[in-house]
Amino acid sequence: MADKMMDVQVFLFDNFETLDAFGPVEVLGRAAGMALRCVSLRGGMVTSRQQVRIQTQAVTTSQRGESADARDLVLLLPGGQGTRAGVSDAGLLAALRLMAQQARYVLTVCTGSALLAKTGLLDGRAATSNKKAWEWVTSTAPAVRWQRRARWCVDGKFYTSSGVSAGMDMALAFVAGVQGSEAARAIARDIEYRWHEDAGDDPFAV
Amino acid sequence: MADKMMDVQVFLFDNFETLDAFGPVEVLGRAAGMALRCVSLRGGMVTSRQQVRIQTQAVTTSQRGESADARDLVLLLPGGQGTRAGVSDAGLLAALRLMAQQARYVLTVCTGSALLAKTGLLDGRAATSNKKAWEWVTSTAPAVRWQRRARWCVDGKFYTSSGVSAGMDMALAFVAGVQGSEAARAIARDIEYRWHEDAGDDPFAV
Repeated sequence: MADKMMDVQVFLFDNFETLDAFGPVEVLGRAAGMALRCVSLRGGMVTSRQQVRIQTQAVTTSQRGESADARDLVLLLPGGQGTRAGVSDAGLLAALRLMAQQARYVLTVCTGSALLAKTGLLDGRAATSNKKAWEWVTSTAPAVRWQRRARWCVDGKFYTSSGVSAGMDMALAFVAGVQGSEAARAIARDIEYRWHEDAGDDPFAV
Repeated sequence: MADKMMDVQVFLFDNFETLDAFGPVEVLGRAAGMALRCVSLRGGMVTSRQQVRIQTQAVTTSQRGESADARDLVLLLPGGQGTRAGVSDAGLLAALRLMAQQARYVLTVCTGSALLAKTGLLDGRAATSNKKAWEWVTSTAPAVRWQRRARWCVDGKFYTSSGVSAGMDMALAFVAGVQGSEAARAIARDIEYRWHEDAGDDPFAV
């Protein structure tokens, strides 16, 4: 057992942005040794901003990073309109904080960065988010070292990305980080995606 | 009521490829006047190749293109491993053929082209599909004028795209076709996506 399996938990909530979650899901679902599941605070059906209804498991104590099966937890957190309510939801933030603390890696997309930032775990760290909601996101957590010109940011175990489609570039960067660039490039080729390998190449920052 | 609403039905089946469906869903879900819903042959839960479980409505006679509410039907058909069984499923193909005949537009992604082609409706038309499964797809329907070097193809009401992520470029081209290029570019900007506007710019064809 050379490679430890990763338990990728995609944390959904109502009004999440569809591609924020499922761009990275497409990438990570093709990576070796990564098993994916969709979770939410209370389980059941969650509806995306684009009206896709997803069945989720409820997060439980043992699912919040407890390595019951010795797998590494990877938390993937999308953004979307639902984050506007999320940043005021103490129960949601407490669950996210616990999961994020116990996770081996945490990946956020778009305004998912705002949710993670509200847990305080990004304070003092470099992070990014999408440009359309930049003023709002950065105002929610001023102690974060927000990077405007960045397709994605890596600081320790935290990967944060810019808006929506940037999540795919970040997910590929994550695969490259844990499995090497060739593994990421092979996935990009298989899905006929032009991966933007340079995190600083961000035409939407201007 | 200058603009007629479009009823975009995303036709899912087990083992569909996640991004094939939800890349275009992200784009079309942001276009003016397009309402989306996920459907399947029998309704209920459908599981993607990457283990995402989606709630779907069953297609019914009235949903198969009947303009009960005077909206234009747009059929969006993803590809994925599930198409291998799909091309031998007479009931599925009959339903798809009926929907596609009644639809104002039909959009397929990746090996979704093989399913549509098996209905016979692409015979004599230009179409494309993904490169990883090219030999299989083209062998399923030799009367189609398959275009290898194409990010996407348009022939009449049929839009077909190359592999997985190409569905987003095609969806943007569809928005441009029905609402103008600026509408498509605005969506691409909002999701921070570099739209490849030239359908012939296909680095994965070689």
